[in-house]
Amino acid sequence: METKINYFPGLEGVVASETDISFLDTDESKIIIRGYDLIELSQSKEYLDIVYLLLENKLPLDSEKAVVANILKSEYEIPEGILDIFKLLPKETHPMDGLRTGISAIAGFDAEIDDRSISSNKKRAYRLLGKVPNIVANSYRIINGQEPIQPLHELSYSANFFYMLTGRRPSPLEEKIFDLSLVLYSEHEMPNSTFTARVIASTQSDLYGALTGAVASLKGNLHGGANEAVMHMLNEAKSVSGFVEMLQKKLYNKEKIMGFGHRVYMKKMDPRALMLKEALKQLSDLKGDDLLLQMCDAGEKVMEREKGLYPNLDYYAAPVYWMLGIDIPLYTPIFFSSRTVGLCAHVIEQHANNRLYRPRVNYTGGRHASLS
Amino acid sequence: METKINYFPGLEGVVASETDISFLDTDESKIIIRGYDLIELSQSKEYLDIVYLLLENKLPLDSEKAVVANILKSEYEIPEGILDIFKLLPKETHPMDGLRTGISAIAGFDAEIDDRSISSNKKRAYRLLGKVPNIVANSYRIINGQEPIQPLHELSYSANFFYMLTGRRPSPLEEKIFDLSLVLYSEHEMPNSTFTARVIASTQSDLYGALTGAVASLKGNLHGGANEAVMHMLNEAKSVSGFVEMLQKKLYNKEKIMGFGHRVYMKKMDPRALMLKEALKQLSDLKGDDLLLQMCDAGEKVMEREKGLYPNLDYYAAPVYWMLGIDIPLYTPIFFSSRTVGLCAHVIEQHANNRLYRPRVNYTGGRHASLS
Repeated sequence: METKINYFPGLEGVVASETDISFLDTDESKIIIRGYDLIELSQSKEYLDIVYLLLENKLPLDSEKAVVANILKSEYEIPEGILDIFKLLPKETHPMDGLRTGISAIAGFDAEIDDRSISSNKKRAYRLLGKVPNIVANSYRIINGQEPIQPLHELSYSANFFYMLTGRRPSPLEEKIFDLSLVLYSEHEMPNSTFTARVIASTQSDLYGALTGAVASLKGNLHGGANEAVMHMLNEAKSVSGFVEMLQKKLYNKEKIMGFGHRVYMKKMDPRALMLKEALKQLSDLKGDDLLLQMCDAGEKVMEREKGLYPNLDYYAAPVYWMLGIDIPLYTPIFFSSRTVGLCAHVIEQHANNRLYRPRVNYTGGRHASLS
Repeated sequence: METKINYFPGLEGVVASETDISFLDTDESKIIIRGYDLIELSQSKEYLDIVYLLLENKLPLDSEKAVVANILKSEYEIPEGILDIFKLLPKETHPMDGLRTGISAIAGFDAEIDDRSISSNKKRAYRLLGKVPNIVANSYRIINGQEPIQPLHELSYSANFFYMLTGRRPSPLEEKIFDLSLVLYSEHEMPNSTFTARVIASTQSDLYGALTGAVASLKGNLHGGANEAVMHMLNEAKSVSGFVEMLQKKLYNKEKIMGFGHRVYMKKMDPRALMLKEALKQLSDLKGDDLLLQMCDAGEKVMEREKGLYPNLDYYAAPVYWMLGIDIPLYTPIFFSSRTVGLCAHVIEQHANNRLYRPRVNYTGGRHASLS
């Protein structure tokens, strides 16, 4: 065995990049986004504010936000050829794979694709932000044999996204809660998908390639797939007592339970989860049905007591999206769509100040004698 | 600024994984593949031997190699729907983007896609190895308005790949040299694309996603794109003196010169480059034209004298592929196709012994006062 001392399994504790974008401040239990506390931002700002903040490094004036809203609206449509590609994908295609193929294919429609300048990358980021909700919704619809849905330009960014996902316009509360979920998912330092995007971008590959890789990363059930896994557990458990029993059985069998814990937060609560728990309460009141809230609350107590683990964002995103009437297979694509802005900010930063990622290995295989 | 001490720009010197697959032994200037010296392998073994070695961890008996050859032949065809997708891509689509879309889309045709077991992953690896040459050749042909080409089952793996790329059957020497290039590109420890694939796979995402990300990585001109960049330099320079002048001018202007140096080899020769320099000599003799050989040889001397830098594999792959009559935009896709087996071996290993990659950052942005 050839051993080097700098081995960090999973790169735990390794700083892979300097960044101006965001930072998990575990001392203060804060998620810092361009210098602001994300939770505080989520209490008074909308997703488009966060888009502007992440890409332009300041909060927008109302006039600036209106300009961005219009730029995005002008990018809502996707080429007919992309819709036709979705029609050719087998009906068994996973929604994240349909999304990944769409992001990959749309690269060919960008006439400036070889330009890695900050200004060109920003333009590309707004372009993608406009189109990704359409790709998410229509790849899913078409793969499932439904007709494509057209964006509604009179709706806000989040309301239009909600409309394309569900086929109906959200109520004001639904729009607010859906927008909040997009804010909370928008950026989160260096999770696997963001790291993937930066690693790819460091070869001077382009934004589409970096985001294609990020979709692939987010598909994994140790990452973005967790929100869907949580909803499947809740649906299978059906009741508060059923859910408590399910969790206890899983704990007894030492199975991994999705929706709890986070390598960086360790044994502290993900502050984003609290925000969506509040939203789940509001939705439960509105609909006069608090079963999911009661189940989640009971599950939270079991995990705290038995393992000292707290819920992460995915744990409460799942029942919130369920009560908003969104199909489960769309939860991870929505996560990606929201995170698109964070990913774009990281790729822009990587291209602007680049160093190729190229780590080493410890070789644990054998050595054979010469062949001759 | 929030500083952690474990910052390694580009992860230089960091061991990101333990592996039984391969290792760059810089002390002995050897590339170790499953315990064997790659250069020694390349002198007596073919690409299919290396495929077997990488996936089964031993060199095949003749009978075992014949079985693998037949498995791959049974996988040469790709679904009609994939060819139809290529027809929908704009003619401006970069060949690596066409390839990436093809690898992404073909995931939907795998009925066992959710199975991450070693046996299922191996089956998937052979499936991809059979199909990737077809995807490489036909995505390029169709995007460029040519008719798709069908694989020829009576040819060897490498001869069929050459045929699909060029539309003609290779001579025995051409087949041998093309196969040698595939052997040399097959596996190389932890370059950016392999790292990308392992990072993605560590979320428990699947082999198609990991390889889609690897294509995106390899597209970058700091990585796989280098072989194409070398050929463009040679074609622009036209003569030995022109090439020497070009390199000196680039050195004077402190431009990055592709095809030289390697972070891991540092100032030593890439041993693979020597093998392809020999192949270039053989092709030059056969065709009675040694202009490219003379140019490359002169360029090598300039770079050694002026910068102490030596050629890497891409430097000699470029003129070899040119003299084999292969279009320049196919050089990086061929690199990917050859590396498919190494990437699959790494993803299989990652899935079998997994730890999620999740590094941290040093936050260099500001901190704002509370919003309220």
